[in-house]
Amino acid sequence: MFSYTAPVRDLRFVLEELLEHRSLALPGFEEASSELVEAVLEEAARLAGEVWGPLNASGDRQGCSRRDNGGVTLPDGFIEAYQAYVDGGWNGIGVSEALGGQGLPEVVASSVQEMLHGANMALGLCPMLTAGAIEALAHHGSDALKETYLPRLVEGSWTGTMNLTEPQAGSDLSKVRTRAVPCPDEKGDHYRLFGQKIFITWGEHDAAENIVHLVLARTPDAPEGNKGISLFLVPKYLVSEPLVNAAGSLGERNDVTCASIEHKLGIHGSPTCTLSFGEGDGAIGYLVGEEGRGLNHMFTMMNEARHKVGIQGIGVAERACQHAFAYALDRVQGKARGAETTISEHLDVRRMLLSMRARTDALRALALYCAAELDVARHGADESERKGAQARVDVLIPVVKSFSTDQAVDIASMGVQVHGGMGFIEETGAAQLLRDARIAPIYEGTNGIQALDLAGRKLQRDGGAALNDLLERVEATAEALRGHGELVALGESLAAGAADLRAAMAIVLEQGSDPENGADAIQAYATPFLNLAGHVLCAWQMGQSALKASAAQAGGSSEPFYRAKLVAADFALRQWLPVGRANRSVIEAGMASLAGFDATTI
Amino acid sequence: MFSYTAPVRDLRFVLEELLEHRSLALPGFEEASSELVEAVLEEAARLAGEVWGPLNASGDRQGCSRRDNGGVTLPDGFIEAYQAYVDGGWNGIGVSEALGGQGLPEVVASSVQEMLHGANMALGLCPMLTAGAIEALAHHGSDALKETYLPRLVEGSWTGTMNLTEPQAGSDLSKVRTRAVPCPDEKGDHYRLFGQKIFITWGEHDAAENIVHLVLARTPDAPEGNKGISLFLVPKYLVSEPLVNAAGSLGERNDVTCASIEHKLGIHGSPTCTLSFGEGDGAIGYLVGEEGRGLNHMFTMMNEARHKVGIQGIGVAERACQHAFAYALDRVQGKARGAETTISEHLDVRRMLLSMRARTDALRALALYCAAELDVARHGADESERKGAQARVDVLIPVVKSFSTDQAVDIASMGVQVHGGMGFIEETGAAQLLRDARIAPIYEGTNGIQALDLAGRKLQRDGGAALNDLLERVEATAEALRGHGELVALGESLAAGAADLRAAMAIVLEQGSDPENGADAIQAYATPFLNLAGHVLCAWQMGQSALKASAAQAGGSSEPFYRAKLVAADFALRQWLPVGRANRSVIEAGMASLAGFDATTI
Repeated sequence: MFSYTAPVRDLRFVLEELLEHRSLALPGFEEASSELVEAVLEEAARLAGEVWGPLNASGDRQGCSRRDNGGVTLPDGFIEAYQAYVDGGWNGIGVSEALGGQGLPEVVASSVQEMLHGANMALGLCPMLTAGAIEALAHHGSDALKETYLPRLVEGSWTGTMNLTEPQAGSDLSKVRTRAVPCPDEKGDHYRLFGQKIFITWGEHDAAENIVHLVLARTPDAPEGNKGISLFLVPKYLVSEPLVNAAGSLGERNDVTCASIEHKLGIHGSPTCTLSFGEGDGAIGYLVGEEGRGLNHMFTMMNEARHKVGIQGIGVAERACQHAFAYALDRVQGKARGAETTISEHLDVRRMLLSMRARTDALRALALYCAAELDVARHGADESERKGAQARVDVLIPVVKSFSTDQAVDIASMGVQVHGGMGFIEETGAAQLLRDARIAPIYEGTNGIQALDLAGRKLQRDGGAALNDLLERVEATAEALRGHGELVALGESLAAGAADLRAAMAIVLEQGSDPENGADAIQAYATPFLNLAGHVLCAWQMGQSALKASAAQAGGSSEPFYRAKLVAADFALRQWLPVGRANRSVIEAGMASLAGFDATTI
Repeated sequence: MFSYTAPVRDLRFVLEELLEHRSLALPGFEEASSELVEAVLEEAARLAGEVWGPLNASGDRQGCSRRDNGGVTLPDGFIEAYQAYVDGGWNGIGVSEALGGQGLPEVVASSVQEMLHGANMALGLCPMLTAGAIEALAHHGSDALKETYLPRLVEGSWTGTMNLTEPQAGSDLSKVRTRAVPCPDEKGDHYRLFGQKIFITWGEHDAAENIVHLVLARTPDAPEGNKGISLFLVPKYLVSEPLVNAAGSLGERNDVTCASIEHKLGIHGSPTCTLSFGEGDGAIGYLVGEEGRGLNHMFTMMNEARHKVGIQGIGVAERACQHAFAYALDRVQGKARGAETTISEHLDVRRMLLSMRARTDALRALALYCAAELDVARHGADESERKGAQARVDVLIPVVKSFSTDQAVDIASMGVQVHGGMGFIEETGAAQLLRDARIAPIYEGTNGIQALDLAGRKLQRDGGAALNDLLERVEATAEALRGHGELVALGESLAAGAADLRAAMAIVLEQGSDPENGADAIQAYATPFLNLAGHVLCAWQMGQSALKASAAQAGGSSEPFYRAKLVAADFALRQWLPVGRANRSVIEAGMASLAGFDATTI
């Protein structure tokens, strides 16, 4: 039976050697020593490996079920596992101390998230959603709302949800129809909500005392489209008194019910609900931020939620790697050099294993680089430093979200293939990872939307300045590799990749700024452009990884770990990057074929 | 509710325009007119669309279940749908008239198979396995066995299975342990078999009167390894008399039982059984062919079974295309040029749709090209013609099997993405296609094994002559495109792809023939080499498609169909082929990283 082991050594390599623990040097993190970080990682690894991980397969098998009374029964053990997470204080580790959290750097919080998602992605979704609700409230909630709701959310004893989608309003949220009616005649400054939301992750469950729904809805007489949408907080149980330091005084059940739960391809342990608001007198909700600014407020937290989905992809990819390696090292089949052997010795299987490992390493390094930049953007000592980091974060986040999740699906699928026929049998566990991973390119904005965000908004608004900043760093790494005897070929490959990305960027900037066809050009080039950027940026991180590993060896280390990092870097730069580089040709081929067909006759 | 429509027009385009119906001109097909073929396709389309297709989703949902008595209950409607197939005479369409079939060309039989798999892949597996049993018996069975078993198998009233895998013997069949003991003291010339086989597709069911198991087993005192393995026919019900022209005289139940059925990722409507042979006195089995030649006999039919799995991938890919197009043309979301629109108008969605369509077209054209070569190999007028065709078939089959199935998984996954959040909901139906498709790269020899077959056996034994023959045809098409005003860019791209494949072939031939490291080189390069070959050969077919479509337009046709083929060809050659071409760089990077890691420490 496979069991997941959190990749502490790999995470530490990224935090300590690639990122040189630079987040710890920032103002505000004075109390976070490298020893503390190490202890946090070890402790999280225990929770992930011993408590969450063992429930992954059983949670998938059992799934969630809706009771007749509208309640949702979670898989066995999930409530206890979530409680262990809350009791351990894990929910607040990345939340600022001002809000009651531990205020650890984002790089540390992201590392912990990766472990938890690798252990149990379905369960990991619950705190991911809560984190979004905390962000939205912290930035836009009134003091009264913050006082009442934040402490429990930060603690994790209450959980959060994001209510965006309606049947006619998916990627296009301007179509939201849920209504929020002000109630001047009632006591309290609230609205009553009426409508139905679908695809609400962890929308109903008994793992927490209360659930705090954040809901997009339209006020009466609000204008059509985006500007008519506001954000509301709708608690499952009404709260009469602020709960700070109080033992808890939950009131009546609010008029929000779980109408059904979805039967999904994967993440069976995560209840995906249809929520009905206002089947009776209307669900009581409180305005968060300003009327008409709901989408803006929601997108404040979207950016970070997208980073978290990328991290989630990496968690599943890591689990898929471990699963495939364990099988390949155990399964005896065929011969290598005349002797019976495990399949891990066949070069064609090794290609799959190394591809999985190298890509997972690369995605992790890039996602944590992005987290480190987030730390600088929030805590950097001077403003220009913060602004520069934020600009890089803005470019990196759609890449981390899309590229990590697309790759995670492919890595999980490759993991199935390593298992041969056993991979197709559900009890083996490899297939679940493919099923689970498959949602990540879809939610929190489809990967196509991420690509538009990168090639459109993010690239066009600064004329490519932030990506150029990153590309200069890529080129510096390429130079360093070229100056390094045994790594010259890696440097050449990285330099060629950077040149491709520059060429593609020039096309997307030039054609994208065309007043007439710019929007089409951006749509046409977005996905191959993001794919190219993902390959080059990940390859860059693997180039850095090679330099660090090589330096460690030069310093006398004979750890197999560093040899492995050099092999993975070689694969990433010389066997993986070339495939990504082909996207330059795809973009250079233009968009005529995309524009020129009639979908009804092809 | 989605319903599958067999792609008759597309199939006819390949048969009539790309292949110019050349199979019909071969000796032996005098009675097969183009009108007959058209009628067959139309009739098969009706069976697929009206009878098999509507059971696809319900079959997945319901799945198969094993009864306490060892019987297997199929999903509702499957028995009747299979019976309709038998009653329509479909099982024998590609079987020679000498064996009681209709003796239609392989291109026609393959076209019909694609439709049936597109309609219902799980059900399509049943006749696919029977076809394998027919092949093996026809080539290697004694006259008595053929007389007794072939008529019913050809008719389809009995079905066949292939019993290869055991827990310790998957890709490496030399490890088979099932025993076959001769019984000199018993009446009849039979053996008794003892052992267990796993992953037996359609191993037990009630859709046929009898099941004919073909089983690999080891005779007493047989040598270790491949040469000790023989092939046996083990009927579910013993047959006392030959059944030719008899009403049927099935005897006792043989000692073979279904011990369990698998819980799989997909193809839930296909019962995958563990079969126990000889829990009592031993299962009575009859030697097929020679003792010790079981693997050779099995591989006679393997080649064609592999072609059929490729076809199966294409069937599922076609269904995924239709599913995605139907959704995209219906789903209103967002705006294009200021107006509300279906998502089929967003260029990023169009990229997915066109990619799915262009790739499916290309895979179909290549698979049917291979089928046409199979027709020539079997029926060509002179021997050198037959030999040349067989050499090309030998190279094409691993490509058709692997490349079609890898691409089918990706196409089905892209289909999920087109559906957004709905794609992850099982009731939508898109996810099933991904789950179903995922087995095809695994069974009938994993795609890694196919790649070894291509880069190893097939390429090395003739020094690349057969692939060179194909490459000359590719280059001729590239030349034709280059001489064709509007298709010049397609010709340039195809020529560049052909040059890459030549360069990669030279590396694989040179390093592969090295006495010391040749086997390693072949293993290391096999998968990227096959991937490159698949892209180039598919692009070639799309180049041919563009030439034909362009000629039709020049001849005055204004059918949207031809415009669509030109768009698909443009995408395939200029946006898809470049990604495949990157495999040349992958091969040129060498195999050091694959050889140089320790799987226990990476």
